[in-house]
Amino acid sequence: MAAPSASYAIILRVRMDHDTTALGRVTTAVGEAGGAVTGVDIVESHPDGMTADITANAGDVEHANTIRDAVNAVDGATVHKISDRTFLIHLGGKMEIRSKVGLRTRDDLSRAYTPGVARVCMAIHDKPEDAWRLTIKRNTVAVVTDGSAVLGLGNIGPEAAMPVMEGKAVLFKEFGGVDAWPVCLATQDPDEIVKVVQALAPTYGGINLEDIAAPGCFEIERRLRETLDIPVFHDDQHGTAIVTLAALTNALRVVGKRLGDVRITMTGAGAAGVAILKILQDAGATNIVICDRDGAIHKGVPEVDDSKQWLQANTNPEQRSGSVSEVIAGSDVFIGVSGPGVLTEDDVASMADDAIVFAMANPEPEIDPAIAARHARVVATGRSDYPNQINNVLAFPGVFRGALNAKARDITEEMKVAAAHAIANVVSADELHANYIVPSVFNAEVAPAVAAAVERVAANDAS
Amino acid sequence: MAAPSASYAIILRVRMDHDTTALGRVTTAVGEAGGAVTGVDIVESHPDGMTADITANAGDVEHANTIRDAVNAVDGATVHKISDRTFLIHLGGKMEIRSKVGLRTRDDLSRAYTPGVARVCMAIHDKPEDAWRLTIKRNTVAVVTDGSAVLGLGNIGPEAAMPVMEGKAVLFKEFGGVDAWPVCLATQDPDEIVKVVQALAPTYGGINLEDIAAPGCFEIERRLRETLDIPVFHDDQHGTAIVTLAALTNALRVVGKRLGDVRITMTGAGAAGVAILKILQDAGATNIVICDRDGAIHKGVPEVDDSKQWLQANTNPEQRSGSVSEVIAGSDVFIGVSGPGVLTEDDVASMADDAIVFAMANPEPEIDPAIAARHARVVATGRSDYPNQINNVLAFPGVFRGALNAKARDITEEMKVAAAHAIANVVSADELHANYIVPSVFNAEVAPAVAAAVERVAANDAS
Repeated sequence: MAAPSASYAIILRVRMDHDTTALGRVTTAVGEAGGAVTGVDIVESHPDGMTADITANAGDVEHANTIRDAVNAVDGATVHKISDRTFLIHLGGKMEIRSKVGLRTRDDLSRAYTPGVARVCMAIHDKPEDAWRLTIKRNTVAVVTDGSAVLGLGNIGPEAAMPVMEGKAVLFKEFGGVDAWPVCLATQDPDEIVKVVQALAPTYGGINLEDIAAPGCFEIERRLRETLDIPVFHDDQHGTAIVTLAALTNALRVVGKRLGDVRITMTGAGAAGVAILKILQDAGATNIVICDRDGAIHKGVPEVDDSKQWLQANTNPEQRSGSVSEVIAGSDVFIGVSGPGVLTEDDVASMADDAIVFAMANPEPEIDPAIAARHARVVATGRSDYPNQINNVLAFPGVFRGALNAKARDITEEMKVAAAHAIANVVSADELHANYIVPSVFNAEVAPAVAAAVERVAANDAS
Repeated sequence: MAAPSASYAIILRVRMDHDTTALGRVTTAVGEAGGAVTGVDIVESHPDGMTADITANAGDVEHANTIRDAVNAVDGATVHKISDRTFLIHLGGKMEIRSKVGLRTRDDLSRAYTPGVARVCMAIHDKPEDAWRLTIKRNTVAVVTDGSAVLGLGNIGPEAAMPVMEGKAVLFKEFGGVDAWPVCLATQDPDEIVKVVQALAPTYGGINLEDIAAPGCFEIERRLRETLDIPVFHDDQHGTAIVTLAALTNALRVVGKRLGDVRITMTGAGAAGVAILKILQDAGATNIVICDRDGAIHKGVPEVDDSKQWLQANTNPEQRSGSVSEVIAGSDVFIGVSGPGVLTEDDVASMADDAIVFAMANPEPEIDPAIAARHARVVATGRSDYPNQINNVLAFPGVFRGALNAKARDITEEMKVAAAHAIANVVSADELHANYIVPSVFNAEVAPAVAAAVERVAANDAS
């Protein structure tokens, strides 16, 4: 069973007989069944009893049923309904449109719509650049997916991807003040996706690609960046890369090493892995070995895949070969974007002193972080229930906020590195600690700092 | 010059010397230059004078400049700035995203986004119908255009069409509580438009096609209706048709004639004309002659166009031929969706007693409504500055509200007729009058009445 968590909070509506000990016996039963009670609300009280809503964290569906049965077994208590707080907040979707103009009179209507709107249309027709001034374009981003690689759930399709894209849109607004709209496509053909996004682009000031499987995501991003005049950013690649660089920057500060000097071993040569590799190199890393299923990628093996050929030519300066366990010995840094069980305790023990381990596979990291911490000085994961969470939410709202503010046509490598350093710098020298290398996602300084850094680079590019 | 109107309200920021008569002389100058002053706000007052914002309705840019010059000619007054209220309300666009969920704590995040959202995704993956319950789909409509026929402005393209589509979205929300999103496409190829909208459809509960030129709009609507499981509705056709039928229903009540008995002459065989023709026939009209540029359409002329062949076979039961002026004689009803100057005073004079004239060409009607009223009992136009405005805003918010409530897969002819009768019935028998055949667009009863009518038909269809 998964550990009980807020992401699976249940609400039990319980009818109890009139007995001063009833509520205590019910909450005790929930606790004894392994549910963590987080709230009690009395719904109604009447002469012969009362009804209460008991909110509790559960682990999974089976656990929720166990808790329900435990409460039903309490003398004089009956569960009337069990509901799921997560589903409740998704009912009807998580976002809506709000009008910024009042429409109370005929005069309002004549300005916001016909006939007044015609002059605004013609102003844009005469000077297309004015779309940035007179429409929602300047604050609006499309969150585009084909549902082919959603979270760790795989290819679940566009309808099932909607709750994630809506969630992303909500995060964009909350943390970056960006209006984002879910675009969940009923096609997984890269060529069609490119054409659809090209057709949609006039409405938007930027395109955030999301949860699109490799290798399609590479072609889609490349072709859209080449043809559109607004930024195109595959968050699973570049958002992850930015936050990884931010975390590594601070982890290296903790251990007193320099990025240009350290030996880095990575596992996972997919979309995120390649993006992380590139940003680390752009930031000054020189010695990176990247491992796929077959071990370290080096020039000794014929490769047909373009991406693999590029990795052969641009990584592994010492041309090391062998399994992860063979090449990780002596490494200063491990970065995993692969899967569970890839790293053993012995592997971590074989690393250099003051090792840094980022085990970012989700939901199961490459190694249990508690085990890694026995030998590594700094450990980070993608999970919120351990210290040092590498979370894209630290990057994408500020990155797009800055790009939109600057009307940037592209999000360049230099902007990404600047964004990473901005995130890292939110953690001050006296706060910096092996268990605090990245700021909290709720730290209100992060997005403005990232936005300012991106905007600054964009302004330099434009001048 | 166009008549001064609220759709072109200007704000003059005027610096005046300290003189108690200055403000009076300035507003007089605006009035003498033909500007209608609608507001005066003192911005600041200081020892040697004051600054005021004078809001006034102007006719066009030239007129605004004339007004400015007139104020500058006032002794001791200087115009510092002239701004345009219509442009001011469009700055930054007219709509934004609002989150419906709070994101204050890690627990909130774990329910709205990862990891909690995964369970919601999988629920939809297991039962796709749940997208209607757990995402924004159930309240969300795409407003799709290619910018090829925007208002009366013609083919101005997707960027310049944005202010209209945003305005439409704002109307959807205000009058129907529907969340609508602008989809302005950078393609005008019907085949591509069909593919793009098919790809986008998973997010939406309905598709409103808007301002797409004929004949492309027919193919696009037909193919989308055939392939999508959500309603597709070309508002320029069907919205106009619904409100026209509503207006005609009440106009016939005013004159005491029945739809099945009257002789109707129409001008304009484009998208709106054909849709009006069909809804009138569905509602019981039997004797309609439709005229294009070459006069009455009848079987005597070989036609290659499918739409024209259909019209030949399904209209003009008496096979009348000749120009509008020749066939309108004796008609009870004229409906124009063509262009200015199509109808003369003599034409109206030749109609039957108690004639009804709907001159709906915009912005210039087929005949000056004041002239038509000399001979017709009921006159309607598409303009807001005459009585009896045939305005689509009366239809589309309620039509989609009802369709979404019912999760309808299509908006059928029967739903459209029901919507028209619902609009007509909002005008009670004692309110009904030759100058009040349709309710105001601000009448709060309209959209709920239309929604209920559409929903009722949908429920019957489903059972």
